[in-house]
Amino acid sequence: MRFITLTTDFGSKDWFVGTMKGVILGIAPRATVVDITHEVPPGDIRAGAFALLAAFRYFPTRTVHVVVVDPGVGSARQAIAVQTVNYFFVGPDNGVLSWALARENVKSIRRLENEKCFRHPVSRTFHGRDVFAPVAAHLSKGFTFAKLGRELKNPVPLPWPRPRKTGDALHGEIVYIDHFGNAITNIDIRSLKSGKTRAVRVFAGRKVVCGLADFYQAVPPGKPVAVFGSSGFLEIAVNGASAAQHFKLRVGDGVTVRPH
Amino acid sequence: MRFITLTTDFGSKDWFVGTMKGVILGIAPRATVVDITHEVPPGDIRAGAFALLAAFRYFPTRTVHVVVVDPGVGSARQAIAVQTVNYFFVGPDNGVLSWALARENVKSIRRLENEKCFRHPVSRTFHGRDVFAPVAAHLSKGFTFAKLGRELKNPVPLPWPRPRKTGDALHGEIVYIDHFGNAITNIDIRSLKSGKTRAVRVFAGRKVVCGLADFYQAVPPGKPVAVFGSSGFLEIAVNGASAAQHFKLRVGDGVTVRPH
Amino acid sequence: MRFITLTTDFGSKDWFVGTMKGVILGIAPRATVVDITHEVPPGDIRAGAFALLAAFRYFPTRTVHVVVVDPGVGSARQAIAVQTVNYFFVGPDNGVLSWALARENVKSIRRLENEKCFRHPVSRTFHGRDVFAPVAAHLSKGFTFAKLGRELKNPVPLPWPRPRKTGDALHGEIVYIDHFGNAITNIDIRSLKSGKTRAVRVFAGRKVVCGLADFYQAVPPGKPVAVFGSSGFLEIAVNGASAAQHFKLRVGDGVTVRPH
Repeated sequence: MRFITLTTDFGSKDWFVGTMKGVILGIAPRATVVDITHEVPPGDIRAGAFALLAAFRYFPTRTVHVVVVDPGVGSARQAIAVQTVNYFFVGPDNGVLSWALARENVKSIRRLENEKCFRHPVSRTFHGRDVFAPVAAHLSKGFTFAKLGRELKNPVPLPWPRPRKTGDALHGEIVYIDHFGNAITNIDIRSLKSGKTRAVRVFAGRKVVCGLADFYQAVPPGKPVAVFGSSGFLEIAVNGASAAQHFKLRVGDGVTVRPH
Repeated sequence: MRFITLTTDFGSKDWFVGTMKGVILGIAPRATVVDITHEVPPGDIRAGAFALLAAFRYFPTRTVHVVVVDPGVGSARQAIAVQTVNYFFVGPDNGVLSWALARENVKSIRRLENEKCFRHPVSRTFHGRDVFAPVAAHLSKGFTFAKLGRELKNPVPLPWPRPRKTGDALHGEIVYIDHFGNAITNIDIRSLKSGKTRAVRVFAGRKVVCGLADFYQAVPPGKPVAVFGSSGFLEIAVNGASAAQHFKLRVGDGVTVRPH
Repeated sequence: MRFITLTTDFGSKDWFVGTMKGVILGIAPRATVVDITHEVPPGDIRAGAFALLAAFRYFPTRTVHVVVVDPGVGSARQAIAVQTVNYFFVGPDNGVLSWALARENVKSIRRLENEKCFRHPVSRTFHGRDVFAPVAAHLSKGFTFAKLGRELKNPVPLPWPRPRKTGDALHGEIVYIDHFGNAITNIDIRSLKSGKTRAVRVFAGRKVVCGLADFYQAVPPGKPVAVFGSSGFLEIAVNGASAAQHFKLRVGDGVTVRPH
């Protein structure tokens, strides 16, 4: 089977995603195309990078992950494909693939230069349809990776904001707010791996103070709680409500974990 | 063919639904996964139950219907699967399956206890991905239902609000507001089955008074009308506009049908 | 392979689209169903017609395109199917197919009258599920087109608003606002085909004045630019922002292109 995932900022209001699928199915009629999300905020490379990071591992090996969050479409930015031990990735060279690639064993990165793999004429404003979708379809059918174009040694990086330690405290930040209003941080479970994991207090923007628990309903309705969420990161939640709304949390807000 | 439907409150902004599909396709690569909706309001068990009720019958027999509206995820609530004469259902034991099951001939209800059917490690906050999706995938491939876990005799019920009769009048309530702003009630077509079906007046919250017709454009634009909608229930609509907005109708508002 | 696309105003909140897919898969279990969009504004025939126009060509030949923007459902309006040299189209006879058909070589238009192709009982308010979806499924399996019903000679037209010339100036209008806030006009690239294409100024509603470029980032962030977008029409954009919001542009607003 041939699996292709799509992560974009195209929204669901227009025909953009549908036409990408049309192009894919014209080349690879047996492909199964799965939407990760199309609601990445327009041009928000970090949000797209985080969605890919949170999702890519859950797909069968050899899945082709396509990410189109591409404010520089048509400009001089490169279009690339990446082959790792487990997957293929296709997208603009603007850092949107970085956080996922940091978890993978990268074998090769190629520029998308082979025009035989494109849909023609190539629009200057919609490479999702004319470049990324057809390249993904060809890769899903076994197209030779090295024939896509020249190798790229130094893709544009998107640095992961690493948490810092000061004494007993671990300082991180909110990197994503999800649909439920849970505020996901950059603090992963390994950073807190110790006998004391349970005995911590979490502070977000001086406004939220809560303990760590295993699940949302471990605290009474309306109360805040920190949990290690399904993407492997510490998140700040409110049982039955939106932590982001309740405490006016935003991406970039500081979060501190201290022993209790 | 193997059909799996998904009804959740996960929204479309994040990667939650995508990762469920990735897990399903890793186990059952030939499955066809169909979204019913992912816009159930967060934690709204009744809205999820109604969406499933309105949709499940339109799928081929042996379809596996997965419903994840699960505010109690990670707590002591059970996870269950249900086999009926026609379908499989998978979800939390919180009543969200009740209204669909009431229309089906239930053969067996099992707790989801067989960890061989789960994805590991099992997150405490995302059973959609780690429990419900893989169980559904295994069921779609013919996994023996009885091996899922122990039988459950008394699942958590969600009582259907039955309309009441007083004299000539039938009193019901609004149970769902759809995308068009139509206010769907709990009054089904059988409750009104009589020679007088046409000669009724419908009152909603004392604010809307309208007659019964066959379709929306049976009244002039901007005028209210009651129709028996596609889900089999009486609904209050406004031709070309949102009845819910126009008349400030809400779920739970009373509706009365009287002979005219 | 059997491809069916869906373009509707059903939204994603309810079960409407899901049940259409259930009905399709019950008849054509191997069909691949692709969503173009379900976010056409309720009853907005022009927006639906434009989405179809922008999308239909990108699908493999013999794809069945289903469009359900159908405010007159249940009334006397006809339901039709159209066979062109490349595709099938299925929808209400209210003009929503017009703009796509104007680009196709139409072979035959039939009324949907053959009740063997319907799902029964046929709801008066949801022909998407009971008429259009099953007809599309049957067509995707090779059902004889002529058996759908009587031929229709004069479908309801939706006139395309043609740009007008006065002297050197070309006057058009905004026909669609996309997810990014780009304002798409009715001026296609052929109208401006000349040596002077680059040397034009575009005026929208007297408020926006900008030049023509190849891509969005050809101007500094926050600045307006006109580009020939991926659907082949001139569009007014703002680099990194929503032109529609920034300049309060609406569908129907006048746009003028003048030599510079």
